[in-house]
Amino acid sequence: MTNDLFLRASRREDVERTPVWMMRQAGRYLPEYRAIREQTDFLTLCKTPELAAEVSIQPVEIIGVDACIIFSDILVVPEAMGMELIVEEGRGGPRFPTAVRSRSEIDHLRLPDPNSELRFVMDALSLTRKELKGRVPLIGFSGSPWTLATYMVEGKGSKTFRHIKELIYAHPKDAHALLDKLAQAVGAYLGAQIEAGAQAIQIFDTWGGILPPDEFKEFSLGYIQQVIDLVPRQGAPVILFCKDCGHSLEAIAKSGADVVGLDWTIDIGRAREMIGSSVALQGNLDPTMLYTPPERIRQAVKTILGKFGKGPGHVFNLGHGILPDVPVEHAKAFVQAVKEESPIFHR
Amino acid sequence: MTNDLFLRASRREDVERTPVWMMRQAGRYLPEYRAIREQTDFLTLCKTPELAAEVSIQPVEIIGVDACIIFSDILVVPEAMGMELIVEEGRGGPRFPTAVRSRSEIDHLRLPDPNSELRFVMDALSLTRKELKGRVPLIGFSGSPWTLATYMVEGKGSKTFRHIKELIYAHPKDAHALLDKLAQAVGAYLGAQIEAGAQAIQIFDTWGGILPPDEFKEFSLGYIQQVIDLVPRQGAPVILFCKDCGHSLEAIAKSGADVVGLDWTIDIGRAREMIGSSVALQGNLDPTMLYTPPERIRQAVKTILGKFGKGPGHVFNLGHGILPDVPVEHAKAFVQAVKEESPIFHR
Repeated sequence: MTNDLFLRASRREDVERTPVWMMRQAGRYLPEYRAIREQTDFLTLCKTPELAAEVSIQPVEIIGVDACIIFSDILVVPEAMGMELIVEEGRGGPRFPTAVRSRSEIDHLRLPDPNSELRFVMDALSLTRKELKGRVPLIGFSGSPWTLATYMVEGKGSKTFRHIKELIYAHPKDAHALLDKLAQAVGAYLGAQIEAGAQAIQIFDTWGGILPPDEFKEFSLGYIQQVIDLVPRQGAPVILFCKDCGHSLEAIAKSGADVVGLDWTIDIGRAREMIGSSVALQGNLDPTMLYTPPERIRQAVKTILGKFGKGPGHVFNLGHGILPDVPVEHAKAFVQAVKEESPIFHR
Repeated sequence: MTNDLFLRASRREDVERTPVWMMRQAGRYLPEYRAIREQTDFLTLCKTPELAAEVSIQPVEIIGVDACIIFSDILVVPEAMGMELIVEEGRGGPRFPTAVRSRSEIDHLRLPDPNSELRFVMDALSLTRKELKGRVPLIGFSGSPWTLATYMVEGKGSKTFRHIKELIYAHPKDAHALLDKLAQAVGAYLGAQIEAGAQAIQIFDTWGGILPPDEFKEFSLGYIQQVIDLVPRQGAPVILFCKDCGHSLEAIAKSGADVVGLDWTIDIGRAREMIGSSVALQGNLDPTMLYTPPERIRQAVKTILGKFGKGPGHVFNLGHGILPDVPVEHAKAFVQAVKEESPIFHR
């Protein structure tokens, strides 16, 4: 591989400089991505391996990131379990017209065979891996069981998360049945992704942060651990990103993940003191910093590099996905700043 | 005063049982509140002392809470500083049609005299205090300078908070000018509230949690401390509620506040270990727990009482405002459960 900085940093091995990539880096801020989306709706793009590979590789070529994450969506898993998924442009995010709430609806969900129902993801990974020609490592991903359950039970975006909260608080056995099924589905899905060519996998727990700490451990982290235990990794590092879960950083670090992703509300220096000797850390620039001029972005990058300090085990990233209206030049300036400012921390 | 449990608990004095109230307790979940709102729009209700007093006292009489918080809105302060405020029913929250973003717009904001431009709040407090007849203490409140600035700069609700983030990251001097003016305005406003009859005051930092820890301290907590230093308290305890700011709990506890409000993502037992010997704690039931049946609510109340443990310094509350579609019977069951389950923790 030409550039394996990301894999080495994930294993806390020595690197010449800190690797950098961006969550949601294949996305709307790129004119080249928008050009493809003008011809193709979102789900068709996810399900057409040639196009998914093309947009996945765009940020490698245009922005110069050190890792390629496959273009896909976490909600293809519930769809493969039998739920109708609707993604309409500019209509407030994806939705499931028939949410899953009762025990019989939960029992009715099927465990998908990732190599048939989710074949398009595996094909996209194989093709992307081939087309990358070893330039940078390829990352596969999935939503966490809890985060998928949240979407499946709410059916659409929510402010209060009333339905999933009622499920766990008033019907915990049903919630556990759903989460147990999801852990099996996600475990098989991530295993198949590694088979298909993913060299690392990231688990996104976008909604872990809506839970109190005890419930986070019971309904989210426990099932993530189950997934991590299930996946035959074949050496692929596992990145775990739980948004707004700083309260449980120590427990997250003991999940079996190799890399813990940090949002921007955690001080990365403090996180390193707390857990950074057992896992690598990924993060954690506030994504809105990319609205500011390049020199301000560079200053913010230096601050985070300084907070992490010398030595290996840091994968630079944003603290959440890149925002769709960020100027491309700012994304480039961010990646360039990490490349230029980080070597002194690895001497 | 007939029932001063709330004030004693706020000062970490001995109590016979844990006092309880709910943020947003004068609100839409109450049919009696909705009956008044059918005749009166939101801002008129805020600005009519007789009606504001009536809805403020409703939860004391209907739900049996141990404190009365004045019915008002944090955005009356920016309005009094010269901004046009629009609150339209069911149109996605309040908004300022002309947001404040440039330095000249910031400099143009005036420092209101709370006893003239915000007279209606003072009159509502005096009237409510009189009509309470000492049944329970009366709480006044304000948004924190940072939270008010967020609304003033964004102009309306936001997912990314792009404009306020650009202001602090790219134009920090302008941000400090705005926040300094707001700290003066809020300090004078809270001082006037105590003069008018408030026996405690709560500072709501609803949006502190969108900041990284360093920026939270610089742009939010620092100005809250300025407010607390400015206010002639006359013995009134200060409650500080910073939502999603668990990362800075120790710093929040050193702000000078008497009571630290906790949202539901912090373990109250852990918070007590960390800071509970210097301040009282308020919270922290997940507001969505009130969607579940009374026996489940009671179990959750017992869990939180057990986590806090024996001894004084706990004011029970939700971890955020009560939700508008909660059944009234569940709110009553919550308050009743605290009253019945807490005495054994005070023997």
